[in-house]
Order: sequence, then C-alpha cells, then structure tokens
Amino acid sequence: MPDAFLLTPRASRLITSARVAHLATADANGQPHIIPICFIFDGRNFYSPIDEKPKRTAPTKLKRLRNIQQNSQVALVIDRYDEDWRQLAYALILGRAKILRRGKTHEKAARLLRRKYRQYRSMSIQDRPMISITPKRVVVWGGS
Amino acid sequence: MPDAFLLTPRASRLITSARVAHLATADANGQPHIIPICFIFDGRNFYSPIDEKPKRTAPTKLKRLRNIQQNSQVALVIDRYDEDWRQLAYALILGRAKILRRGKTHEKAARLLRRKYRQYRSMSIQDRPMISITPKRVVVWGGS
Repeated sequence: MPDAFLLTPRASRLITSARVAHLATADANGQPHIIPICFIFDGRNFYSPIDEKPKRTAPTKLKRLRNIQQNSQVALVIDRYDEDWRQLAYALILGRAKILRRGKTHEKAARLLRRKYRQYRSMSIQDRPMISITPKRVVVWGGS
Repeated sequence: MPDAFLLTPRASRLITSARVAHLATADANGQPHIIPICFIFDGRNFYSPIDEKPKRTAPTKLKRLRNIQQNSQVALVIDRYDEDWRQLAYALILGRAKILRRGKTHEKAARLLRRKYRQYRSMSIQDRPMISITPKRVVVWGGS
C-alpha cells in the first residue's frame, strides 16, 4: 500500500484540494457502477460517508454498497478539468473497499469529513455507513 | 435502450452542457478502472476519442481499451458539483461499449467532437480509436 509520503507534492495537492471524487465499483457480474462522492484522505485511507443526499433509498440498498459487499475491488479518481488541456491532471487510486458501521476509525473519519465539508456538520453521518478505501496502487497523470 | 426523447429536459441540459464525464470499466477479474473523458452525445450514443493526451502509452495498451475488449459493460456519469448540495445532480448511464476504428460513425463522432472541443481541431482523432457507448439504462438524480 502506498504510504502518504510516497505521493508527490503535486498529487497530494490535487487530492487534498478536491471537493469531489468519482468512485467506481463493480458487481459480481462485472457491471461497473460509478458515482461522484465527497471524501477525505487521512494520509493512508480514503473515507466517504453514506450521507443523507439519496433520500429515497435506504443506505443498505445503495448499489455502491451492494457492489462492495460482492466485490471489494474499487477505483477512485480525483481530477481537475481545465480548458487548457496542458493543465489536466488526475490521480487514479486502485484499492479495496470495506464498509464501516461504527468504531474509532468511523468516528475519526466523520470528524475529518465535518472539518472539510461544513454541509456534514448538520447531518448524522456518525450513525450511517462509511466506505473506507485502502489504496493498493496510485497512478498520477498530467498537471504539467 | 433509452432514446433521446426519453431524457428529461433537465438530464438533457446536464449532459449537453458538461465538458467532462467519468467512465468506469472493469477487467475480466472485476477490478474497476475509472477515468475522466471528453465526450459527445449524438442523441443515441456517447462517443469518446482516444486522443493524444496520454502521450506515453500506445492507444492499444490503454487500460480502458483492454477492459472494454475483455468486458463491454461500462458505466458513465455526468455530474455537477456545487457547494449548495441542493444543486448536486448526476446522470448515470449503464451501457455497452465498443471500439470504433474507422467508418461513417467514427467520422461523424470526430466531427461532433471537434465542434464541441476546439482542442480536438488540431488533433488527428480521425485516425485513432473511438469508444462508442450505447446506453441500456439511465438514472438521473438531483438538481432540484
């Protein structure tokens, strides 16, 4: 697993400045699914809460959670679009996901998420599942 | 397959105004991969060229192409981030991808891409592979 100190300063900046990432999962039949997510990176793992945005679906029914239960392999990309394509950049993270329900790591992630996103301060993310992603491989591209 | 006229005006606006989409593929072992892409939608299919951005890799070696050759199931998301989370919106497209090498459809897609992105006008996308995605299912969320 790539430790934080292996990230270049450029990749670190891209990851810490991004407000949104995109998470790809796949079900047991190999059908990919993709969704924009809010996230934090604690220097080792990425965390993304199942928040209150998808009001119409019970958290356990969410496709990304069902996929992770079937297949823990995921991909996460954090990128920057710019009309000057010399400025395009992305960090692609291939890793394993698991679903946290409670505990110290869950609490810490919720705290960090509320520090980054004021929108979470009034949401009960501490009572909801949290996706934890452990990177196995990181590919950084662009941003010359 | 959802014809263009089945897209709501809101989904249509989101799709046609976006400069970037995110494409998820998965290899034969179910490992997802994800990448930001430039694209056009012709009312029926999505097209994304293998352009000259990834200068260091031969097009045939690109992971997304290898994945599509192994597993044509893909997911595409077009979304809008906003700090006012009531404005968040996405269109998720689940579909089948294939790789076009040449022909009338390839030519038409290259023409539409150059109309949308002036950056492609000086790139030889007509000589490079093009990913074509036929939607099987579209999920639109948010953007209240």
